[in-house]
Amino acid sequence: MTLLYEGKAKSVYETDDKNVLSIEYKDEVTAGNGEKHDFIPGKGHLNNIISAALFERLHAFGIPSHFIAKTGEASQLVKRVDIIPLEVVVRNTAAGNIVKRLGVTEGEVFETPLVEFYLKEDSLNDPIVTEDHIKLLGHGTDSNVAELKEKALAVNEVLTGIMNKMNLTLVDFKIEFGRDVEGNILLADEISPDTCRLWDKDTNENFDKDVYRNDTGSLIDTYNKFYNKLEGI
Amino acid sequence: MTLLYEGKAKSVYETDDKNVLSIEYKDEVTAGNGEKHDFIPGKGHLNNIISAALFERLHAFGIPSHFIAKTGEASQLVKRVDIIPLEVVVRNTAAGNIVKRLGVTEGEVFETPLVEFYLKEDSLNDPIVTEDHIKLLGHGTDSNVAELKEKALAVNEVLTGIMNKMNLTLVDFKIEFGRDVEGNILLADEISPDTCRLWDKDTNENFDKDVYRNDTGSLIDTYNKFYNKLEGI
Repeated sequence: MTLLYEGKAKSVYETDDKNVLSIEYKDEVTAGNGEKHDFIPGKGHLNNIISAALFERLHAFGIPSHFIAKTGEASQLVKRVDIIPLEVVVRNTAAGNIVKRLGVTEGEVFETPLVEFYLKEDSLNDPIVTEDHIKLLGHGTDSNVAELKEKALAVNEVLTGIMNKMNLTLVDFKIEFGRDVEGNILLADEISPDTCRLWDKDTNENFDKDVYRNDTGSLIDTYNKFYNKLEGI
Repeated sequence: MTLLYEGKAKSVYETDDKNVLSIEYKDEVTAGNGEKHDFIPGKGHLNNIISAALFERLHAFGIPSHFIAKTGEASQLVKRVDIIPLEVVVRNTAAGNIVKRLGVTEGEVFETPLVEFYLKEDSLNDPIVTEDHIKLLGHGTDSNVAELKEKALAVNEVLTGIMNKMNLTLVDFKIEFGRDVEGNILLADEISPDTCRLWDKDTNENFDKDVYRNDTGSLIDTYNKFYNKLEGI
């Protein structure tokens, strides 16, 4: 298979079908834009099965994505899309960079979910962008941006419901979208504890990559526990 | 007179009329959020007469502001407003922080003017905010933000016309707004080479505070030349 793209946590390969790609989840983990970097055997497998399970549940709730099927321990087939170079972040509760950036209080629950866009550009440290910046940079029209926001809020509603059943608070998450061959905007990339901030409703314990970022627990144990909870509902 | 507020470049006093304030322009200049700091005799006078002249011209073009009248060398009377804690920036050409932040090319002329909002909060380094952040922080509704944008673009149109007559390109500028006692949103603060980036159309020479920020010329000479050009049109 031809390697199409290699990121920090995943490699993307072409397949015999030009409209289908294979994603290989790696056993690597980074934080702080690469400042922290480790090899953790088993991580790729966990991210693959969690992301597949979450995409399947989203499909069941009528939210389409690029996901087609799991094909191996750490691999899945997805529809080929051109990734829109924006990280779309939805925040239900204040945590992470917004606390330092805007001086809001960690743990403050927002009256309505907040949608933010960040430019996917490591060399610029993924700066936050406004809707006018997105237009100026040529990454979307007004109506594209409105569609991204609407889709992100729909994902938030379904994911919040799933996490509630797992007794977890969906604090915030990051998703990415891509355009398929027909130009439709489709949810893409992955959804996992790498890309969500999740707090146990009783203990406030982290069920996400913050255990790695902040050295507060075992990533493998946490992701395993998360997967078992998800399979149990 | 009772001192109501002291900023980096101005002091604001109450007057006998509770709806009227007096602004005293100081001979101080700072850059880089206070990292660079100097005392330059004559600067307060120049900022006062330039800002008064520009507010008068904006009034003549139907754009109201808090400005009432010049009352001394470095002082002017203004309507009392509650300043909205947002710096409203309009950019016609890429320069300054947007070049580093988004990787656009210095000097690139934008197809349409770009309006940005920054939270006025020194302790947070005046972070850029989106329209959703403004709502979340309680600084304005959707319709307030739309009004700020519309008014900022109207100021841009008139100022661009004035600068064109002076053979200057209005690259970008920062303005502030306040709410008067009736709750109307009114242009406030100051407009001067402290708050605008201006390039000579022939030589690209700076006619603004960048001569101080970048140590490329005399601030007093530059502001004097700017005032003479303005009076000459």
